[in-house]
Amino acid sequence: MEALLQLGMVSELPSEAQNCETSASEAKDYFVVRDGVKFAGTHLIIDLWEATNLADPEHIDAVLREAAIATGATILHGHFHHFGPNSGVSGVLVLAESHVSIHTWPERDYAALDIFVCGACNPYNAIPVLKKGFLPGRVQLAENKRGMIA
Amino acid sequence: MEALLQLGMVSELPSEAQNCETSASEAKDYFVVRDGVKFAGTHLIIDLWEATNLADPEHIDAVLREAAIATGATILHGHFHHFGPNSGVSGVLVLAESHVSIHTWPERDYAALDIFVCGACNPYNAIPVLKKGFLPGRVQLAENKRGMIA
Repeated sequence: MEALLQLGMVSELPSEAQNCETSASEAKDYFVVRDGVKFAGTHLIIDLWEATNLADPEHIDAVLREAAIATGATILHGHFHHFGPNSGVSGVLVLAESHVSIHTWPERDYAALDIFVCGACNPYNAIPVLKKGFLPGRVQLAENKRGMIA
Repeated sequence: MEALLQLGMVSELPSEAQNCETSASEAKDYFVVRDGVKFAGTHLIIDLWEATNLADPEHIDAVLREAAIATGATILHGHFHHFGPNSGVSGVLVLAESHVSIHTWPERDYAALDIFVCGACNPYNAIPVLKKGFLPGRVQLAENKRGMIA
């Protein structure tokens, strides 16, 4: 495994995108109210199958940045680690509104992502960007509302 | 929001811990078989309520590293962003086996974490470390098996 720990990349590229809009009443603690439920944010668990471009860290970096910006989030920090030629990539973007992550298994045409955005960002806006970037034959999606308060 | 984007910290501290053990048959693609199900890894969604130390990025960094090492994972990269004095922290660790993340709302004594480790790492070993580090009154936990193959 040691030999695989290589090619880490760090980048600090503040996004040009506007932050998700937050109303004055939400600004104090950044929780939102929707359908009568107060919660911290929406966390999507996304599995891509029969996907492409999963061994290309530059491409993955670019797609994830575009996806994050599509949700309305602001990118604070990014790191994408390539485990070697033709091997998988693990990457994260730290957002002002939480994070995006990806872990790829090119040998299985499979990628595991999550997108957690708080406040008024819409994580579903990232899905078309991921589909365009990785051309998956199948997408599995699960939603978690984080920090729900009854 | 712009004024809050400050105090980012980047650190690259390879862990001393051993990688999770992987059998020869699993080494090819890192998927594991358990209870007759083949999958990429286990992804825990963890909510801490009535928790402490949520506005201290150095403490959070240290606790998350200890938690990651407890699972048997190898830390490749870490980044913890402090949104300001007495404000929340967003942080991630990129692991050779996927990632750990945390986002804190100290004003609500709430933290949203996730721990995704592939292969033979055990993410549940992180829970006692998180309890010791953040002294939550309540812990909510959900498990996702990622990349399940029928």
